Amino acid sequence: MSGIKTDRRDFQLIFCYLPCDLQHYWQCFTIVVTFVSDTSGEVAASLHLAKEMRSHGKRDKATKLYLHALALEPHNVEVLTEYGEFLEEEHNYMEADHMYTKALTVHPGHTQALTNRLRTLPQVMEYERRYFTTIDKKRDLLIQVPLNSAALRRIKQESYYFYIYHTNAIEGNTLSLGQTRAILETRMAVGGKSIVEHNEVIGMDEAMKYLNNTLMDRIGAIRIEDIMEIHRRVLGHCSPLDAGHYRRTQVYVGRHIPPHPIEVENKMVEFNEWLNSEEALSLHPIQYAAIAHYKLVFIHPFVDGNGRTARLLMNLILMQAGFPPVTIKLEERHEYYEALVKANEGDVRPFVQFVAKCTERTLDEYLYAVEENPTKDWPHLSSLDDGKVIIIN
Amino acid sequence: MSGIKTDRRDFQLIFCYLPCDLQHYWQCFTIVVTFVSDTSGEVAASLHLAKEMRSHGKRDKATKLYLHALALEPHNVEVLTEYGEFLEEEHNYMEADHMYTKALTVHPGHTQALTNRLRTLPQVMEYERRYFTTIDKKRDLLIQVPLNSAALRRIKQESYYFYIYHTNAIEGNTLSLGQTRAILETRMAVGGKSIVEHNEVIGMDEAMKYLNNTLMDRIGAIRIEDIMEIHRRVLGHCSPLDAGHYRRTQVYVGRHIPPHPIEVENKMVEFNEWLNSEEALSLHPIQYAAIAHYKLVFIHPFVDGNGRTARLLMNLILMQAGFPPVTIKLEERHEYYEALVKANEGDVRPFVQFVAKCTERTLDEYLYAVEENPTKDWPHLSSLDDGKVIIIN
Repeated sequence: MSGIKTDRRDFQLIFCYLPCDLQHYWQCFTIVVTFVSDTSGEVAASLHLAKEMRSHGKRDKATKLYLHALALEPHNVEVLTEYGEFLEEEHNYMEADHMYTKALTVHPGHTQALTNRLRTLPQVMEYERRYFTTIDKKRDLLIQVPLNSAALRRIKQESYYFYIYHTNAIEGNTLSLGQTRAILETRMAVGGKSIVEHNEVIGMDEAMKYLNNTLMDRIGAIRIEDIMEIHRRVLGHCSPLDAGHYRRTQVYVGRHIPPHPIEVENKMVEFNEWLNSEEALSLHPIQYAAIAHYKLVFIHPFVDGNGRTARLLMNLILMQAGFPPVTIKLEERHEYYEALVKANEGDVRPFVQFVAKCTERTLDEYLYAVEENPTKDWPHLSSLDDGKVIIIN
Repeated sequence: MSGIKTDRRDFQLIFCYLPCDLQHYWQCFTIVVTFVSDTSGEVAASLHLAKEMRSHGKRDKATKLYLHALALEPHNVEVLTEYGEFLEEEHNYMEADHMYTKALTVHPGHTQALTNRLRTLPQVMEYERRYFTTIDKKRDLLIQVPLNSAALRRIKQESYYFYIYHTNAIEGNTLSLGQTRAILETRMAVGGKSIVEHNEVIGMDEAMKYLNNTLMDRIGAIRIEDIMEIHRRVLGHCSPLDAGHYRRTQVYVGRHIPPHPIEVENKMVEFNEWLNSEEALSLHPIQYAAIAHYKLVFIHPFVDGNGRTARLLMNLILMQAGFPPVTIKLEERHEYYEALVKANEGDVRPFVQFVAKCTERTLDEYLYAVEENPTKDWPHLSSLDDGKVIIIN
């Protein structure tokens, strides 16, 4: 099949209109792409050379060769499995587990990947358990701070502006943190900035007030209507005719093609069932919040404002579990999108890890702010090493 | 009853919650107020003196005395009728007719007012007929201008900005015509102006585009949904949660108390029936448009944006009859509100006259703009004398 040119976009455009299950398509599609690809010779050569470098202890060169092979064929099961084994040797169980998971998404019965994953999964789960325990302890510390503490009120207020600034900036809003704050305090326009950007700030303010004043006080499950009401506020001032309504057109999010518009309503009903399922409610709140976020942006039910709505839904779940609202920073955008891409490829764990890291960082910031005469610097780094290298005793 | 203090506001607050017909209340209420008023002595004295001045030819003094009496008791039937007769002597049939109409609203069987009105009504109707004919001729002249005329396209574009500026300025928006234009052309914010004011501009733009691109092309009657869709755009960016929805609270518009919120939906159904009734469709388009405007602001179905929506509905009707969109200017605000107050008092004719004047002025501006080498100045004044003085041969 060497020499046959294929354009992934063409496949996606054709498949997205077929009324069947998306994940299944993704598998078929990636197998087809892999099969007809004309890069197979180069990939095989890279893999062969990587093995040789690895056996000679030239790990840097081996890494480059594995990554080159994966760049050519990101869904090549052999490369994924072998690179996973290589990462295991470096004690990077998290990334290794991700490689096996990705391989198994493409080829669910792949024996080597299955066997390898039996090794990595318990380690990853143990790491997660420990990390969640660390974060829960920090949350419990914060809960002990009296609600009338002036320092707590201040950090809450600051975090409010901070959140609105970052959640909009991630989507391309160019207003600075200071300008965002001025808009919220004065409702006056900043000359030279677009009106839409102002309305994004006002919309987020209304959506967050709705979360704090209405949804947080309500007892009971999260409903589709709650998500619609959040979106109605997020996008209300920017696109009043789209706000609170499902999209009626196909949308494209990078390589991800969300469900066809006629499927959106059913997908949202399924999502809502999951949100209130025993399975979801038995997860750690961070897992629950992160997966809810991922599932919502996967469906991408709205023409715009999906990310902002998903981050608010994530925070609704976290806040209901006693966490402060968690900010995903503009500087973390690349990492955030990468984790979402990995989730689209079948492994949601890196995204859960990412949300956990943001939760911990937010907690550190709160705890630092309420501490009297703090002895350390402003917490910029996570207390754990982001799970890149785990050594389990 | 002299000496009993009455507060009109108290009456209105009580009456507005009674589930009956509003106009009937107005009559009862004004009779009650007149009856229990402690100003009756002063009014009687003023009226007596006015008659004396009138008989001695001291017309300026008589005018002042009549107006003083009316200021004390605006709904005193005797004063209204006598002042009407005085105005007839001055050939001001339009205003005289208004006095009789007002008297008959308070006391529908008043013999003198009825007799007098038999004299003024035909004159007023004849004046209206002549005025509408003049305006129709100007419209027909404008229709003959080729649609591809560069001058016509220019004045249409200018009038578009002009309309948005004035319709917002009337409601208190402080953006200048230049700023309004810049916002529409660039979508960038004007520093130091409120975000709401920007959104009022954007909303009007969307509502007018909806009129021009959707409603004008549609065949068939005007429906309630059309009015809701206009409002949804007018208020969409400012108050997305209220836009396109009826109010759920009581509102107050100066002295006018619109229907109780639970009555709004029925009143709108009745209004819609009238909009498509033979009676309405047999009116001159200017009468039809003006009365539609008046009826909508009387119901005041929305919490905000009623005036802007009513002016757009008025223009939809005018445009369907071949008129250009008519601007009511900021400078005309007082006259506009006065005419609406007169309509609330039972006489819609002054408001129809006001709309006719604005229509003629708009036509004059268009005709001036498309004229090659115009010989006269920019038309600031109506070609007729606003109906203040009519002499019918």
